[in-house]
Amino acid sequence: MSRFMKKAFQDFDSYTPGEQKNDGSYCKLNTNESPFPPAPAVVQALADFDADMLRLYPDPTGRVLKEKLAAMHGVAPENIFLSNGSDDIINFAVLAFVDQDEEVVFPEISYSFYDVIAALHGVNVRRIPMAEGFSIDPEDYCDLNQNIVIANPNAPTGLALSSDQIRRIAASNPDHLVLIDEAYVDFGAETVIPLINEYDNLLVSRTFSKYAGFAGGRLGYAVGSKDLISDLTTIQYSTNPYNINRISMRLAEAIVDSDDYYRVNAGRIAATRARVCEKLQSMGFEVIPSKANFVFVRHASVDGGTIYEELKKRFVLVRHFDKAPISDYIRVSIGSDRQMDLFINKLQEVLSINQASEE
Amino acid sequence: MSRFMKKAFQDFDSYTPGEQKNDGSYCKLNTNESPFPPAPAVVQALADFDADMLRLYPDPTGRVLKEKLAAMHGVAPENIFLSNGSDDIINFAVLAFVDQDEEVVFPEISYSFYDVIAALHGVNVRRIPMAEGFSIDPEDYCDLNQNIVIANPNAPTGLALSSDQIRRIAASNPDHLVLIDEAYVDFGAETVIPLINEYDNLLVSRTFSKYAGFAGGRLGYAVGSKDLISDLTTIQYSTNPYNINRISMRLAEAIVDSDDYYRVNAGRIAATRARVCEKLQSMGFEVIPSKANFVFVRHASVDGGTIYEELKKRFVLVRHFDKAPISDYIRVSIGSDRQMDLFINKLQEVLSINQASEE
Repeated sequence: MSRFMKKAFQDFDSYTPGEQKNDGSYCKLNTNESPFPPAPAVVQALADFDADMLRLYPDPTGRVLKEKLAAMHGVAPENIFLSNGSDDIINFAVLAFVDQDEEVVFPEISYSFYDVIAALHGVNVRRIPMAEGFSIDPEDYCDLNQNIVIANPNAPTGLALSSDQIRRIAASNPDHLVLIDEAYVDFGAETVIPLINEYDNLLVSRTFSKYAGFAGGRLGYAVGSKDLISDLTTIQYSTNPYNINRISMRLAEAIVDSDDYYRVNAGRIAATRARVCEKLQSMGFEVIPSKANFVFVRHASVDGGTIYEELKKRFVLVRHFDKAPISDYIRVSIGSDRQMDLFINKLQEVLSINQASEE
Repeated sequence: MSRFMKKAFQDFDSYTPGEQKNDGSYCKLNTNESPFPPAPAVVQALADFDADMLRLYPDPTGRVLKEKLAAMHGVAPENIFLSNGSDDIINFAVLAFVDQDEEVVFPEISYSFYDVIAALHGVNVRRIPMAEGFSIDPEDYCDLNQNIVIANPNAPTGLALSSDQIRRIAASNPDHLVLIDEAYVDFGAETVIPLINEYDNLLVSRTFSKYAGFAGGRLGYAVGSKDLISDLTTIQYSTNPYNINRISMRLAEAIVDSDDYYRVNAGRIAATRARVCEKLQSMGFEVIPSKANFVFVRHASVDGGTIYEELKKRFVLVRHFDKAPISDYIRVSIGSDRQMDLFINKLQEVLSINQASEE
């Protein structure tokens, strides 16, 4: 740390990105990326992109992409905010809407980024303890009269609330922001985007990183009332008016045009997830029922840290969170069938050695 | 504005991006873009880019690009911070380094974004009045014991300080950040990057938008002491850990490899600028001597607003700032010789009509 870092950040813990070992030697099941290639129209849009256009600033309003997203979701373009990945949305939303004398409330076990963003902007945090099996009890979030952030499905558990449950949370906190992070919604959970016209406090965050396999392209968006979106735009124009580069903007348009392709892939992930969960249970794992493109599991006798380390030695990367009460668990992204077969194979090897050494 | 916007932002004025009329019908001399195509290696890198890699997150450390930039500038990779355009650098630097009881000091006439960022983060501002001819007197910035931001060359004037003048400012404010925004340095001014090892409070901001013609690709970087860079990284990881998409990262590597190509283009801009300045003077303009890829000029008898509006009717876009004391001026980007001939031609038309109507 430099001697110039401001006082508020002297003890600041920053977010630690997942391991990005992308040289091809690892079977990478640690950051919930898609195993599928881009849609043909996306490949074509990249091939057709005129490099000469890069000399010009992008359209800061992102009009074309917003119109396509709006049509897809049955909302107006003015209900859409575009961002350089969806983390920026959480950042802008907390900066725009959470006053210093207010709180931001989220589940005790969730995406660790929420904690970091709250600390960054110096706002108070209330972490609600989990209900049974790391689930979220929606009643715990009703009538709080505070700003609320919930990932649905939640990370790293994969558990999802229903649209009706979230409706109750939004309806019972009418004077505060309710931000629903739907990064993983496309793999089996219900979206609450249809509720944005009823609840002007409801903001829904989305990303192309997971279901559209576009983590490398960086495109997130938020859907909400026109006024919420206008406020987010005010903040974004005041930090980085041209936040999305021309190529990602163009490819994202092609992604929306190819929605059918990506829906099919999401269905394939759900099918592979079901198969993997069954197999893991047969191997002695407790499996939390997931609606996301990952599963959160713990073994009856071998701890999460050991499994993580031993798999890594075998060139399979999964995610392990070294903190109570989830340090027994690993989070495993659902990749292709071939990747998952390799994972199961290496996992069997790890378990047989570690269980043998215990006996 | 929504009813959720926090109290601090109730009267907030956001930054207004320049007009981006990119349908090809305008001669666009309003946002200081480059008129030149990308280097052949950049076009090739785009053609060679494997769309399948987009499914993976980018390398959050940007190692390869940092190594290339470090080699180009004669510093270490740990002295380089990468960002999604250079506005983000100012944003992160003010957030990281300016305490609430401190000030950020900048010239009264400069890039309007500095004011917006200071307001966004609720820090106090001190605007130093300009010296003669809108110049910056470096003595006004010495021994302030405050955080200082100076664009060098300054915008929208194009006037530049020498490396020695900036050295004195950095040396005489040793306990505060001195941020030098070198967005336009490549067109004739002196960089202070060689001073970063002497002054641990000196941070230099750069962009590929201007000299590298990469405004549409969004790539900025900062150069400073390892500790300053580490602090900026802490803040960036905590807002958007994957802030640069894979394609822009790859193309930026090819840009650094093609530095000779871009240096030649910068020289062509300087030559065209000299020719245009001479012509403008002969047409009755007062021309501030510019070291940037734009000129800031005012006519003896026709005001800036009129010239801006009349040129726009003729499909030539320049920038006009409708505020005292610069409302008489227009800022004109230096484009290709062909663009500047068109500009001069239309300008002569505008002047002849407006001067005739006065008589």
